[in-house]
Parts: sequence; structure tokens; C-alpha cells
Amino acid sequence: MTDFPDRLLAGYRNFMNGRYSDESDRYRALAETGQKPHTLVIACCDSRSAPETIFDCGPGELFVVRNVANMVPPYEPDSQFHATSAALEYAVQVLKIRNIVVMGHGRCGGIQAALDPSTEPLSPGDFIGRWMSLVRPAAEQIQNNAFMTPAERQTALERVSIRNSIANLQTFPFVKNRGEEGGLSIHGAWFDISTGELWVMNSKGDFVRPDLDEPPIEAEQASA
Amino acid sequence: MTDFPDRLLAGYRNFMNGRYSDESDRYRALAETGQKPHTLVIACCDSRSAPETIFDCGPGELFVVRNVANMVPPYEPDSQFHATSAALEYAVQVLKIRNIVVMGHGRCGGIQAALDPSTEPLSPGDFIGRWMSLVRPAAEQIQNNAFMTPAERQTALERVSIRNSIANLQTFPFVKNRGEEGGLSIHGAWFDISTGELWVMNSKGDFVRPDLDEPPIEAEQASA
Amino acid sequence: MTDFPDRLLAGYRNFMNGRYSDESDRYRALAETGQKPHTLVIACCDSRSAPETIFDCGPGELFVVRNVANMVPPYEPDSQFHATSAALEYAVQVLKIRNIVVMGHGRCGGIQAALDPSTEPLSPGDFIGRWMSLVRPAAEQIQNNAFMTPAERQTALERVSIRNSIANLQTFPFVKNRGEEGGLSIHGAWFDISTGELWVMNSKGDFVRPDLDEPPIEAEQASA
Amino acid sequence: MTDFPDRLLAGYRNFMNGRYSDESDRYRALAETGQKPHTLVIACCDSRSAPETIFDCGPGELFVVRNVANMVPPYEPDSQFHATSAALEYAVQVLKIRNIVVMGHGRCGGIQAALDPSTEPLSPGDFIGRWMSLVRPAAEQIQNNAFMTPAERQTALERVSIRNSIANLQTFPFVKNRGEEGGLSIHGAWFDISTGELWVMNSKGDFVRPDLDEPPIEAEQASA
Repeated sequence: MTDFPDRLLAGYRNFMNGRYSDESDRYRALAETGQKPHTLVIACCDSRSAPETIFDCGPGELFVVRNVANMVPPYEPDSQFHATSAALEYAVQVLKIRNIVVMGHGRCGGIQAALDPSTEPLSPGDFIGRWMSLVRPAAEQIQNNAFMTPAERQTALERVSIRNSIANLQTFPFVKNRGEEGGLSIHGAWFDISTGELWVMNSKGDFVRPDLDEPPIEAEQASA
Repeated sequence: MTDFPDRLLAGYRNFMNGRYSDESDRYRALAETGQKPHTLVIACCDSRSAPETIFDCGPGELFVVRNVANMVPPYEPDSQFHATSAALEYAVQVLKIRNIVVMGHGRCGGIQAALDPSTEPLSPGDFIGRWMSLVRPAAEQIQNNAFMTPAERQTALERVSIRNSIANLQTFPFVKNRGEEGGLSIHGAWFDISTGELWVMNSKGDFVRPDLDEPPIEAEQASA
Repeated sequence: MTDFPDRLLAGYRNFMNGRYSDESDRYRALAETGQKPHTLVIACCDSRSAPETIFDCGPGELFVVRNVANMVPPYEPDSQFHATSAALEYAVQVLKIRNIVVMGHGRCGGIQAALDPSTEPLSPGDFIGRWMSLVRPAAEQIQNNAFMTPAERQTALERVSIRNSIANLQTFPFVKNRGEEGGLSIHGAWFDISTGELWVMNSKGDFVRPDLDEPPIEAEQASA
Repeated sequence: MTDFPDRLLAGYRNFMNGRYSDESDRYRALAETGQKPHTLVIACCDSRSAPETIFDCGPGELFVVRNVANMVPPYEPDSQFHATSAALEYAVQVLKIRNIVVMGHGRCGGIQAALDPSTEPLSPGDFIGRWMSLVRPAAEQIQNNAFMTPAERQTALERVSIRNSIANLQTFPFVKNRGEEGGLSIHGAWFDISTGELWVMNSKGDFVRPDLDEPPIEAEQASA
């Protein structure tokens, strides 16, 4: 147990002198009244794809699950510890969030690992190998496609995986119920780290550039 | 499948016109060379405790796992899907992160649920109930202490749970090995949403206010 | 009976040349008209927690009881000598003080003794053991909590004890009556010796940092 | 339970911006290493006679008991709660203080009450009446002395009471033992609120003005 990293303390000082200082009333109110986030984001752990940064969201807006490759496993009501399913249950049943966004991104290390059948387990426990087996069937088809470049196979599986997670979301009875009642909408998004482009999934499952032509609105005044 | 939330598109426009515009070179370089985050943060899904905000970190710095109540389960090399263990394995074995921070926060809904023995399952799957059973033994001792206020019991369990997760981290052979080689340090932190105060864990396991008296340094220039 | 300690005589000279010299009119007036303190403070004997220092109060402001661990025993109208109850009676019935503050502090030796069941009596009379038995029930619950660190158990009992003393205050009929008439308010406070932080008790019994954001006012001109 | 008194919060701000700011290293060291006060002062609750003020002592120097009329009851090893005896035991046996000062003062309300046989109990519990009965025998002789003025009778009993407390101190075996070993000296002092004069007890039990002619020394450098 060593001293707390200097870099993080320096960043914390910036936060206190900057953002917290500007928004202390908001933080206090959020502490008093509790959080009421409008959206659950299931994002990747990747250090380049923080949802609060990409969506420029303030405290209280996004309830965020982050795991490797932003995946949702299928509904499995057994006696295990399910980190992602537990967060999903809490977000839908307690917080009554109105949107779920599964947000993937380019150059995802987890997806890359899933596409490489020669990868040795990273440790005897092979946690990544097992975790990424959630997209094994799709990965097997894509990895054998000799006509696509490696980058194309990677992007393809990143997007297939988002649709796979959305399909798994629908296997949770409480998600299905809330969706049918009209109080919950589910979305896919894919972020290009290099260009900063956001692609969103349309009703056919395709990823398209959203129309950003509307006059800019103030984030604070925007309705969710 | 409905239209992508306006609020998120508006925030994304802010990102593109602001942060991305200022840091596009950094994003491009991070895309080319891959991420080399210095720190793995295990944080809560709570919408009020985004690590990138609190530590004022930019893209590429923090590899972030977020689950309910920022917990690490013990090492269980079985055939299940382990979201948190997989991320831990990837961060330590592939990314060679140098710090792990388990960051809890005040008024955590998951911890609150763990302290309330009368809580009904949120759904037939009872995912939150099972997930929070990771801190059941400590919760049982604390919930029966009639002399502490509800808020005191909550803070106590939030901190006990951070120590519990750190103890669980040590059960992973690859974490233990890297720690013994000196290349990995493990830290606890607790964020007070209302006051913005950060408390860090000292070598005794107690949470104390870090010394922030040093002259402010530029976050970007700070070494990790 | 030896010579009076040099250190105290040197300090007394400082007082006469400094504070008394500046405030001699006030001392003379206080001698003539008698004291009218606004607040009774029940504080610990600890050498690091003098109420006049921490609240920067001048002569005539605070009527101060100091005993080990700043405790108030319950109302016991028997024939014994009750140092604390006598002071309380005098403060409320004669001086008509308007506030009572029970002020605890961190690292309290009395509380530490209460938490250590193996402590031998300090003398055959076991005065500390008996005195600290005022918090025995709470101490027993807390000392058996194996998940909290020693420092956390200590802070917890320090705060429980303040609430316990406040509950005991309410068992005195004259305190209860004055409180119901609206002329007396009761407060808890806890002082962190290391950081200098003062925490005050809110209406739920929790200890929180008071809002100190108001523009500084002159202590001498401040209304009580 | 109302808001914490403004006057005290304003004073606390002064402390933090002034004394604590100047002496934060000392407070931190005292927190780390524990207190080692050189002197136990048994003083009155009176708002005009704070020992830290009169002896210009900083944090860590004085372990202070304050009760009405700065009294020490005789040694009574029974099962009662003894606030003063407990503090005495802790100061001598744990802190190994080197000096005990029983400090009285002029115009003491408790002594005044002891001299007035017509006083009604302040409450049905009559705590002050019982507490002041510690000096009843002396009070009875003095109150009937028709040749002394009321002010003379008051001063006389204030000083008799200090000697009485010192005699009671000697009934505690651990005080007697430490005194005989040479590690503990006992003193009496009497403070005149109006003039600021300090009178100390000499070896005959008389109260005299101490010789203050020595060149002033810096309090911080003074040895105890």
C-alpha cells in the first residue's frame, strides 16, 4: 500500500478548484435528493471512451456500467455474482432510467482478443477468454472471412457485439416489460476514437452518423 | 428502437466542438499507438461519481470498471462470465497498469440495499441481492448496530466494502505477483458526493483526507 | 508543595502583557456585573481540545464543564456528588445559558479505554473504568465489529457517546422544560485534532461539516 | 435540535484562519504521537477563568478538569460515576502529568451558593447543593463570621476550598504514591477576574503574588 498517485491528487485538486467549485450546489442537491439519471450507458473500460466525456454529461445524468467490450450477458437467474445484470436490474427497477445505450468503440482490445483464436489465456483463470466467449459464435464467422481486412473484421465484430448485447438485454424480463410499457428505449452507439465520430444504430441495426445539423442547444437545458 | 436521445446528441456536439476539437491530436495518437493507461479504477455505476470527472483525467489515462458499489469479487477460476475479473486480468496482464484504485462514494444505493435486510428482490432473478451478498458478513454486523445512525452505518459499510474488495484483489495470483514485483500499487478512495471531499485509504486501512497543500501542478504535466 | 511551575508563570506573564492588557475593561466589567455566558460546553479534559481556543471565545462567553470523554451521566437525583449534573443545573437554572454544546474529539483516550475490554483498572478504585461504563452498551457492539479498523471504531464510539450524552441531557427535567419553552438549544460537535476540522451534529444525529462559506464576520460583533 | 450557534461557527472560522493555520504542524504531531500534557488543572466552569487563556498555553500542554468551584471530592472507591476522580486517575496513571494545579477564582458562583444557607435548591435534584456540600464544614464556620464582609467571606472560602481539594487529592493512593516518588507536585492558585492578578499558594497554604520579576521568556521555549 503506497502513497496515493500524485497524478490523481493533482487532478482532484483541479476538480475541486474547477468543476466542483462551479457546480457545488448541484452536487449538494444530488447528494440530498438522490440520483435520477436519465440514461444507463453500458460502455467499455477502455481509457479512451469515457461516456461522460463523449456525451459531455454532468453529475447525475448517466448511470454507467463499464466492462471489457461493453457487453451484456444473457439473463441467467442463478446463484452467481452478476456485475452487469445487477447494475441493469438496479438501473431499471430502482432508478427507472428511460434510456439504455450500449456504446462500443473502435480498436477495442477485448474484441481484438475475441478475433484471435491463437491467443494464450492471459492467466490460468482465463477470465478474458471466458468473458469474450459471449461473442464467440459471431467471432468465429468473422475471423474466418478472408475477404475482409483485419480492421474491417474488428469493426464488424464491434458492431455485431453491440447488437448481441442489445438482444441479450431483451432476455431480461424486467427490461422487456418496461420496454413494452413504453417507458424505456434501447440504443446502440459506436465511437471512433481517432476521428471522434459517433455512429448510432438505426432501426435496422445499422450504424449511421446521426443528423447533427440542428442548431446547437445548451446541454443544461436539453431534455433527455 | 427509438431515436437516439436528444440530450446525448447535444452533449456529443459539445464534445466535438470543445474537448475533441482541443485534443484531436491526442485522440488520433491514442488511436494509432493504443492506450497505455496508468491506472485501473474500479468505481460505482452511480451517476454522481465518474472517475474521469473527479480525477480530471483525459482520454488514455484511466481504465475504468464500473459496477454497482465498486466491488471486486474473490478469485474464482470457473467457467462463468466474470465481468470484473476479466477487466482486472486485461488491465494487469495486457495493459500493465501501475495503480489500481478502488473508489467508493457516499450515499451508495447498492450499499444501502445491502444494509436493509427487509429489501424485497428487485426482480425474480435478485441480481442486486446476490451481487451485494459479497459484503453480507460485514453488512450483518453493521446493520445490527443500533447506536449508529443510518448514515453512519452506510459510510462504515462503504469503507469496509472497499477494504473487502482490496482483500479480494489480493486473491488473484497475477495481482499478487505484480504487486510483489513492485510494479503495481493498490489504493482505496472514498468520494463524498455532497462536499466533493476525497478520502484516501492509508496503510492502516483508514480513510483520511489527503494532504493537498502542495502548490497546484498542471494536471497534464503531472507524472503518474 | 514545590515552586509554582515556571512554564505556567511565563504563560501568565504573556497573558498579563497581552490579552489581559488588551481586554482589561472587559475583565473588570465581567467582574462587576457577573458572567452571562451564552453557551455551556461539555468538553473533554484532553489537552488538545480547549473549547475557548477552538471557538476563539473570550472571557465571559463559555461556561465549560470538562471531564474525561465529555460525558453527561443520566439524571440521578440521589445524595451523591455529581460534578457534571451540578454544573448543568447551575448553567441552566442560574445562568440561563441559551445553548448546550457537547463537544467530543478524535483520538479520545477515554473512548479508547472503553473500547478495550482487556484494559486493567488504572488503580484499585477503577474510576476510569466506572466512568466509561456510561457508554458500555455501545462500546460492546462496536468493539466486536471486526470489519472496522480501530480508528473507525474509535470515531464511531466518540460520536455515539455524544448522542448518548445528549439523550442523557434530556432526562434532566429542567433541561427538558427549558428546551420545550424554546429558550435552550442542544448541539453536538466533534473536533478532529489532526486536521482542525469541526463536525457538527445535524437533526438526524449525523455529524457533518458546517457550511463555512459565509463571509467572515468579526467574532466580537457576532451575535450568539 | 436547532442550527449550530452562529457565534461559535464564526469563532471557529477565526481559529482555522488564525491559530490552527499557524500551528497546524503542532496539531498534526499531537494527533499522531498523542498528548503529553505537563500539568493537570482542576478549574472552575466559570466563563471568565479558562486556564488555557490565563496561562497562555497551547494545545497539548494542559489536561483540564472543570467543574463548579474547581473541587476535588475525597477518594471514594465505590461503584458510582466519578467525573473528577476518573480524570485524576487518567492524568496521573496514564498521562503521568508532573503537576496538578487546583485553580480557583474570585466571585465564584458556586462558593457564593455554599455561603448562603437560605438558598433554595435550584431543582428538585439539588445537584449544586449536594456538590457544594463538599465544603459545608468550612462554609458553616465562615458564613457565621459576622466580622468579615461578604466579599471577605467569599474570598476566604474560595481559598479554603482550594486547600480542601488539595487535601482530598492526597487521599487518592495513586496521587500520594506518585508524590512521594517525587514525580508529581501539587499547587494551588487563585485568579482575580477583575485585576487579572494570579495568586499562588505557598508552602504554608497562604496565597501570595508570585515573583514575576524575571525577564520574560518565550512561552514556546519555556520548560515545564
